[in-house]
Amino acid sequence: MRLSAIYQPIQEDLAKVEEQFTLLIKSQDDTLPELRQMLRHVLGGGKRIRPALTLLAGKFYDYNSVSLLLVATASELLHIGTLVHDDVIDKASVRHGRATVNRLWGEDKAILLGDYLFAKAAGFGAATGNLRVINLFPQTLQTICRGELKQGFTAFKLEQSFDDYIERITSKTALLFAMATESGAILSQAPEEAVQTLKDYGCNMGIAFQIVDDILDFIGTEKELGKPIGSDLAQGTITLPTLMLLERYPEDNPVKKVFNNEDKQKNVELAIEQARNSSIIDECYQVAVDYSTKACQNLAQLPDCPGHQALLDLARYVVRRKR
Amino acid sequence: MRLSAIYQPIQEDLAKVEEQFTLLIKSQDDTLPELRQMLRHVLGGGKRIRPALTLLAGKFYDYNSVSLLLVATASELLHIGTLVHDDVIDKASVRHGRATVNRLWGEDKAILLGDYLFAKAAGFGAATGNLRVINLFPQTLQTICRGELKQGFTAFKLEQSFDDYIERITSKTALLFAMATESGAILSQAPEEAVQTLKDYGCNMGIAFQIVDDILDFIGTEKELGKPIGSDLAQGTITLPTLMLLERYPEDNPVKKVFNNEDKQKNVELAIEQARNSSIIDECYQVAVDYSTKACQNLAQLPDCPGHQALLDLARYVVRRKR
Repeated sequence: MRLSAIYQPIQEDLAKVEEQFTLLIKSQDDTLPELRQMLRHVLGGGKRIRPALTLLAGKFYDYNSVSLLLVATASELLHIGTLVHDDVIDKASVRHGRATVNRLWGEDKAILLGDYLFAKAAGFGAATGNLRVINLFPQTLQTICRGELKQGFTAFKLEQSFDDYIERITSKTALLFAMATESGAILSQAPEEAVQTLKDYGCNMGIAFQIVDDILDFIGTEKELGKPIGSDLAQGTITLPTLMLLERYPEDNPVKKVFNNEDKQKNVELAIEQARNSSIIDECYQVAVDYSTKACQNLAQLPDCPGHQALLDLARYVVRRKR
Repeated sequence: MRLSAIYQPIQEDLAKVEEQFTLLIKSQDDTLPELRQMLRHVLGGGKRIRPALTLLAGKFYDYNSVSLLLVATASELLHIGTLVHDDVIDKASVRHGRATVNRLWGEDKAILLGDYLFAKAAGFGAATGNLRVINLFPQTLQTICRGELKQGFTAFKLEQSFDDYIERITSKTALLFAMATESGAILSQAPEEAVQTLKDYGCNMGIAFQIVDDILDFIGTEKELGKPIGSDLAQGTITLPTLMLLERYPEDNPVKKVFNNEDKQKNVELAIEQARNSSIIDECYQVAVDYSTKACQNLAQLPDCPGHQALLDLARYVVRRKR
C-alpha cells in the first residue's frame, strides 16, 4: 500500500502542512535570502509520517483541524531540525539523494538552521495554547538529545545489549512518533486512556520504524536510500543487525574489526555480506514486525474511525518500506 | 560597583537559580554520566546578567518568585545553549579561560548539549504556564539564529553599515536581554506600558553590552577575557571598532587585508594596534554609553522600587566592565 493511499483520510490537512512550510519559506525577508534557500532545501519532500500520525490520531474523537495542523507542522519541523543536526554530527554529505545542508552551506550554517527549526517548531507548538502539548515538545527534544548523546558516547563500544539498543532507539526516534500521536489525541479531547493508548501505538510503531531503518542500512541500495549503505556501522553505532552478528559470530567478526579500526571499509562490506547471507536480516525483520503488531494491538482498544484503518496500514507500511 | 552589590535586592532568588542548575546536574541518571559532566562544566560561573534582569524587572510590580525563578533559569539556559553552539561554529577552544565543550568532548557532543539546553530552557519556560512568556522563547531563539546566520553570511564582507551592525547585534544579543526583562515584567503583572518600557531597557542595555564586548575584543587581554583577543576580526565579523577603522583609514587598511586573507595574524594585530592608537576606542565607548543612557532613561518612567536602582547600576556596569 502506498503512503498517499494511507494518508487519504487526512489528505487535505496534510496539504495544509505543506502550505505552512511554503508560507514559512515565503515569509523570510530579503535581508537573509540564504535562509529562504536553506528552508526550501530542507522542507521539501519527506514521508511526512509524523504530521500524518498527529492528524490521524486526532480522528478518533473531536477533530480540531486548527490546533492539529499547528502541532503536525511543529512535529515535522522538530524532526527536520534533528536531521539537519544529525548530518553535521555524522559529517554526512548526502541525505535523500541530495546534498546535505552542512555540505552545501557549511557546518556552522547547518547548526544555526537546526536551531532555527527547533525554535519554529516550539513556536507552532506554543500557538496551540495547550499547555500539556506545549510541554511535550521540550520533553521530547530532551529525550532525543539524551538518546543521541548516548549513541555518541557508546560509539565503537561492543558491550551493548538488546535492551540498551531498544532504549536508545526509543529515545532517539520512537518518542517523537509517540509525541505526534499523543498530542493529536490530547488536542482532540481523547479520554486519558485513549491518549495513553495512542502514545503507546506511536512508540511501538516508532521502534519498528527505526529497526527497519537499521536493517535498510544493511540491505538497501545507495540509490533507494539516497545515502551510502553501512553508514551506521562505519560510525560505530550498534544496531540490531550488528548486535545479532556479534552474537552469532563471536570469533573473527568483521564488526569487531571495524570497531578496532582495522581495514574499516572492507570490514563494513564484509559485515553487510555476512548479515545478508545469514538469517539475521529475517530475524531483525521479525523483531520489527513484532513491534508493528504491538502497535496494531494498541489500536484494538480504540473506536472505529477513518483514522483507525490508516494507522493500522501505516504500522504495516513502516516494516515493508524500502527507503 | 561590583555585580554582587548590584544583585543585592535579588540575591536570594539568584541563589535559587544556581540551585536549579545544581538540581539539573544531579537529576541526570547514571546511564549517561558524560551529560552530567558536560552540564557541570557549562553551568558553573557566568555573570548571570540575564536571570538578574528577569528578577529585577519583576521587582516593579507584583513580584512572583516562583514563576520569575523559572523564567530566570530558562533565559540563562537559553543563553548558555547559544554559547555552546557559538563555540562549535567559531571552532573556539577556550571560553572564560576554560576549554570549550567542543574541545573537551567533540563538536558532535557540543551540538547535542546545546540542543539539550534549548529544550531544558523551553521546559522551564513552559512550566510558568504563561502563554505570552512561553511564546517569547521560540521568538527570541528564532531572532538569535537569524542574527547569527546573518553574521555568518556577511563574514569577510566589507559592505556593511552602522545600521546593519546595530541590527545584527540587536538580533544576536540584545533581544535575549529584552526577553529577560519583558518576561519579568509580564510575570509580575506590570501594566502594558511598563512591559514595553522594561523590554526597551533590556534591548538598549543589551546593545551597550555587545558593543563593549566588541571593544574588549580589541583592548582586552587574553587573561581578562579568557579567550584570544582579535577573534571577531579573525573570523571576519564586522564590529564597531572595525567599522570605524574602515571609515577612518579607507586606504591601506589592515582590516581589508585580513578580509583578503593576506598575512592574517599580523594584520589582525596591526588593526588592534591602529584602533588602540586612535580615538576609535573612545568613540566606540561613547556609542555604548549612549545606549546605556537610553536604557537608564527608559527606567525614568517606572515607579521606584529595589529593582530600579539595581537596573540603573547594571546599565552603567556593562559599559565599564573589563570582561
